[in-house]
Formats: sequence, structure tokens, C-alpha cells
Amino acid sequence: MATVEKVTEKTSSRAILLRAAADLMIERGTIEVSLNEIAQRSQLNSALVKYYFGSKNGLMLALVEDVLGPGLEQLKGLVEMDLPVVEKLKLHIKGIINVYFRYPFVNRLIHAMLMEQELAIKVSEKISKPLAETQRQLLQQGMDSGQFKHIDPMMFYFIVLGACDQLFFGQHVLNHAFGIERIDEDLKRAYTNALLDMVLGGILTEEGQRA
Amino acid sequence: MATVEKVTEKTSSRAILLRAAADLMIERGTIEVSLNEIAQRSQLNSALVKYYFGSKNGLMLALVEDVLGPGLEQLKGLVEMDLPVVEKLKLHIKGIINVYFRYPFVNRLIHAMLMEQELAIKVSEKISKPLAETQRQLLQQGMDSGQFKHIDPMMFYFIVLGACDQLFFGQHVLNHAFGIERIDEDLKRAYTNALLDMVLGGILTEEGQRA
Repeated sequence: MATVEKVTEKTSSRAILLRAAADLMIERGTIEVSLNEIAQRSQLNSALVKYYFGSKNGLMLALVEDVLGPGLEQLKGLVEMDLPVVEKLKLHIKGIINVYFRYPFVNRLIHAMLMEQELAIKVSEKISKPLAETQRQLLQQGMDSGQFKHIDPMMFYFIVLGACDQLFFGQHVLNHAFGIERIDEDLKRAYTNALLDMVLGGILTEEGQRA
Repeated sequence: MATVEKVTEKTSSRAILLRAAADLMIERGTIEVSLNEIAQRSQLNSALVKYYFGSKNGLMLALVEDVLGPGLEQLKGLVEMDLPVVEKLKLHIKGIINVYFRYPFVNRLIHAMLMEQELAIKVSEKISKPLAETQRQLLQQGMDSGQFKHIDPMMFYFIVLGACDQLFFGQHVLNHAFGIERIDEDLKRAYTNALLDMVLGGILTEEGQRA
């Protein structure tokens, strides 16, 4: 799904810097990570950030594109595929949760970038708008086939992304209120199933439920 | 629902400081607000923060309690009430959305506080745990009466809070990807209805749907 590469001997400096940024955000549970810290973690000179990305903003944009770009392409492919639309919807939601599972910072990073004028247009053109548009097409297929009830794609966007994200965003709640230290594959799977039950229960018509 | 008071002549300095903190967070779309800025905005001396709250952490805790405390008490009352459980669930979800509508920063503030050792235990004891426990009781009532399908209360907690929050957290997405400048009462209502359709569709048994 995502391509922030695992570091190998052959990994490029560019990929090492992106991986270091991602690792720091994951470990700290915050997107507040400085260029110096990224350079230190990657054992590369911070001048390389300037060389590869121009600025911290450039690095953030590259990180978001690396993390979300492949999933977005997959989603576009999914919409075109000859698959039952209910299966497409399931795969889409599983895909979002898998990205958040691996990169729990990414939803927050996008929101932070959308607050900065210089980045907002780029992020929305490259990520938010294509995602919203592709989801809209998927929902339209379901409604056209009579398998989905009518739903406003914008409402769907916020409900589903918020629900997918909250488990990963709320890891401290998970710890303090529910006594769970970390999210493992089993918990991710159980959460995915609970969310699919709710979304499918909410969106499928009787015909969709039989399909 | 919430009690960060509107400022009147008689409002106490304590309430003025809390209101200033809330207003700054709402206007800026971030919880990063300094004591100096809060003092400036309130036209009160920042020493008063120390007097009333001890520290910035104390002020944050008071803010969260003021914003969420009343809703939490209402929820506890709701669970005890002699009302159909489906109505209770609807009122609960409407209540959460209303709080996020008025205080779109509050979910983020809680998560930030849970990351700080000094605050984490207090916030989870006063807010997160009681909320999770009261929701659990509400869901249990629905399952016991045969009107709700089985659902893990922890999954419900994250799915519903995440979905309720995302519209308000994602105001920049709303703007950049959907061309909507601000969330008004109509949008809030439409979002509430879309979310209720999904949650009720996902959680109600056939008996629950008839009720």
C-alpha cells in the first residue's frame, strides 16, 4: 500500500530521510519533528533535506505523497475494476485503516499542512480532492446499482476517515481508558470488522445486503 | 450542554480566562495557545492564571472539565432515564456533535493532555474513563433489550467519537476539497443525520429498527 521504504543498504538518501521523519512521528505520537532531529536520526547531513526537498515543507509534502500516493492510485484502480461494489467498499475501508495502522500520523499531518497556505493547495490537489472524488465515484456506483442507500459523499468522507483514524490517533485513550498498550494486527482486524459492520449496515440496501 | 460562559459584566475572571482560551483555540484552529496570548485576549493579568489554575496545565484541565463535564453528567442522567434506548443513543450522538460544533478543539486538546504524564491520569479519570463506562452501560441496555446488535463498546467509542469529530477537525479539508467555508447549523444537522443513519443502520437489530 505505502512506499516509505524499509531502509536497506541500497536505499537512497531521499528515502532514508523520509523514513527517519516517519519513524520519529510514529515513535513520538506527534508531527512536531524538526529538520535537525530528522537529520540526526537518519545520520545524514541536514543540508540534504534542502537538496532533496527544498525545505521542511517540501519534505512533509514528499512524505504525504509517499505514504498516501500508492493507496490513492490503488483506489482509482479499484473503482475501475470488475468487482462487486460492496467488495470495493470493503477493500477501500481496509486500505485506509492499513495506512493509518502503518502511519498513524498521516491524517494529522495532512490537516496541519492544510493550515499552511503554501502547502494547502498542493495537498488538496494531490491528496484530498482526488480521494474525495474517487470515493464519490465508488459511492455513485453503489447507488446506481441499487446496492447502496443514498448518501452524501462529503458526509461519507468525514464519517469514514474520522472513524478509521480515531483508533490510531487515540492511542493514549486506548492506553489510559481501556488499558491497551499498543495496537497489534488482531486489534486492527477487530476494529476493521466493527467499522465495516457499521458502515455496511448503514449504507447497504436490502439488495446490497444480499449481494 | 457546555458551560464556558458567555462573557457578561458579572462573569468571573476565571470564566473570562477560560473563554479567552477557548476563543483563541477556535479562531486559530489549533490548541497551541500561550498563557500570554490568553492573558492579552482576556485583558487580564497572566498572574491570574497562576492564581486560579496554578499553571497552563491547570487551565487546560479546567477548560476540558468546563466544556465536557456537563455533557458527561447529562449522559449519565440519560442512561438512567426512562426513555427508549434508541432515543438515548440518538441523543448521545447529537450531544457529542453539539459539543464539537461549539468547541471544535476539544478532542485534540484531550489527546494532547493524555500525552503529558501530569495530566494524563487526571483527564482519563475525569473524562475518558467515565465517558467510556457510560457509553458501555448505554450499549448494554440496547443489547439486553435485543434492540442493539452485539458491539464491542471500545470499538464503538473510537468509531463514533472519530466520526463525530472529523467534520470539525477537518475544516480545512472542508474548505479546500469541498469548497465549504464554515460549518453552520444546517451542515451540522445534515452531518448528524448522516451519522445517525449509519450508526443506527449498523447497530440496530430488526427489533430495534421497529422500536
